[in-house]
Amino acid sequence: MNIGIVGLGLIGGSIGLKLQKLNHKVFGVVNSDFNEIKAKERNLANYISQDLSILKDCSLIILALPLKDLIKPSETLINAIPKNAIVTDVGSIKEPIVRKWEKINRLFIGSHPMAGTEKKGVNAGNANLFDNSHWIITPTSETKIETIKILSGIVNSIGCELCQTTPEEHDQAVSLISHLPIYISSCLIETASSEQNKAILNLAKKISSSGFSDTSRVGGGNPNLGLDLLKYNKKNILKALYMYQNKMQDLERLIVQDQWERVLNQLESSRENRNDFVNQISKSGNPLEANN
Amino acid sequence: MNIGIVGLGLIGGSIGLKLQKLNHKVFGVVNSDFNEIKAKERNLANYISQDLSILKDCSLIILALPLKDLIKPSETLINAIPKNAIVTDVGSIKEPIVRKWEKINRLFIGSHPMAGTEKKGVNAGNANLFDNSHWIITPTSETKIETIKILSGIVNSIGCELCQTTPEEHDQAVSLISHLPIYISSCLIETASSEQNKAILNLAKKISSSGFSDTSRVGGGNPNLGLDLLKYNKKNILKALYMYQNKMQDLERLIVQDQWERVLNQLESSRENRNDFVNQISKSGNPLEANN
Repeated sequence: MNIGIVGLGLIGGSIGLKLQKLNHKVFGVVNSDFNEIKAKERNLANYISQDLSILKDCSLIILALPLKDLIKPSETLINAIPKNAIVTDVGSIKEPIVRKWEKINRLFIGSHPMAGTEKKGVNAGNANLFDNSHWIITPTSETKIETIKILSGIVNSIGCELCQTTPEEHDQAVSLISHLPIYISSCLIETASSEQNKAILNLAKKISSSGFSDTSRVGGGNPNLGLDLLKYNKKNILKALYMYQNKMQDLERLIVQDQWERVLNQLESSRENRNDFVNQISKSGNPLEANN
Repeated sequence: MNIGIVGLGLIGGSIGLKLQKLNHKVFGVVNSDFNEIKAKERNLANYISQDLSILKDCSLIILALPLKDLIKPSETLINAIPKNAIVTDVGSIKEPIVRKWEKINRLFIGSHPMAGTEKKGVNAGNANLFDNSHWIITPTSETKIETIKILSGIVNSIGCELCQTTPEEHDQAVSLISHLPIYISSCLIETASSEQNKAILNLAKKISSSGFSDTSRVGGGNPNLGLDLLKYNKKNILKALYMYQNKMQDLERLIVQDQWERVLNQLESSRENRNDFVNQISKSGNPLEANN
């Protein structure tokens, strides 16, 4: 199959490497001389160019661009997509992207591979990024059966567990487990950093250990991604933040009132409930980070 | 040196193994037949008994007991400690322990090794637990110079970086970087688990990845430890929770008002500030968890 990938960063580059192994012919589009040279060095696609016309014979186009470029795509990109090509994206928010692209292309289907690392750019892609991870697709009532079938086939061949939902449910689920942790974590860093007593602040910095390190990790991630998620999934993230603050107020009240039995109940319930979220395939032995 | 260790769980057992390697004579006290058999099998000390009189010739006693047993020690324990022995503990809160024990023993000094794993009990100890970690000591105006000198020597020989502060500053610092993360993290688990829409809840469980896993890890830890920390460091943890909730409300307000530049500033600041907390010796290549 001739497959076009627009953007050869972590996700696009990894897909390019994997699809070539599966004997597809891959056409990759990059946005700078530097990226073109690097992407060619690393063989991220069979053909690599800054010229979107390279996509003209592709029957599947994968848009691996930043959120803002998916939500407000350039006219040049829109015009370069062949009329009969199936189009999908790999953005970490689905509803605004699907809404936009279903108007542009009747063969569009939204998708979101749940894999990633801290790395980004043309140097980051690797063929095994998607091993043991989920790949979500979000068809709507507009989506053609044939489109679902072809994308599902590709996803399965890449080695991902396919997971189907609606764009709206996707965005709500990721607001809870993927987006909320970023802001929780950022506020932890800001709280510790804002300690006014210098001696305590310096001691805290010196002795902080893996508990702080893990809980703060996603809050110390890419600030622009954290911002874009808020911009484009604002309603769901605000709802999650609101639910979260209620939980925290409830807990604070129990502590103030020395309601130790009920505090213990919460902590026991947390230990139990966490297992439902961390014992899935994408976690077992796979240290890769979600493509937030 | 004859060194007594009361309690041969993760921390006590690890100290026992290490001190024997350093050619000290180690006397370990356990609280059950089962633990006595196990501790002897694993050679956690040179002499192991359930009888506290084993401590009578020790010149240093290390109390490696749960917080509640340190804060409300039994009369039997108090009476078993030789008059001229230096006494220290390894509890993760210092102020109430130091206050209590300074009245019992004029050679007491509080301490807190910042190392640990998820494991506990007589099977958990290992001689390398303290490699590259900090060991905090918390002398007061009551503490004898000789006591500080002898404990410091032991700590250094174990391979820890010694770190000196007051009990009060210790408890404030750990409330920020070690205790606060537990409750932040527990509330994240409770928020995600309380999603009412079953389809979204199930999707969230299925696709949650390392971002959720890391941010929720300490919230899914030992519930009794999480409870004891609250009981015995309530004032400081409540203050930290209060500071934290203010940060979260500020962030929520910025999001509601679309103040994206200021949101970006916070996320950039978090990325920057996190480095101050995670680039210390105890973290480099050492996956061990803090002994919260």
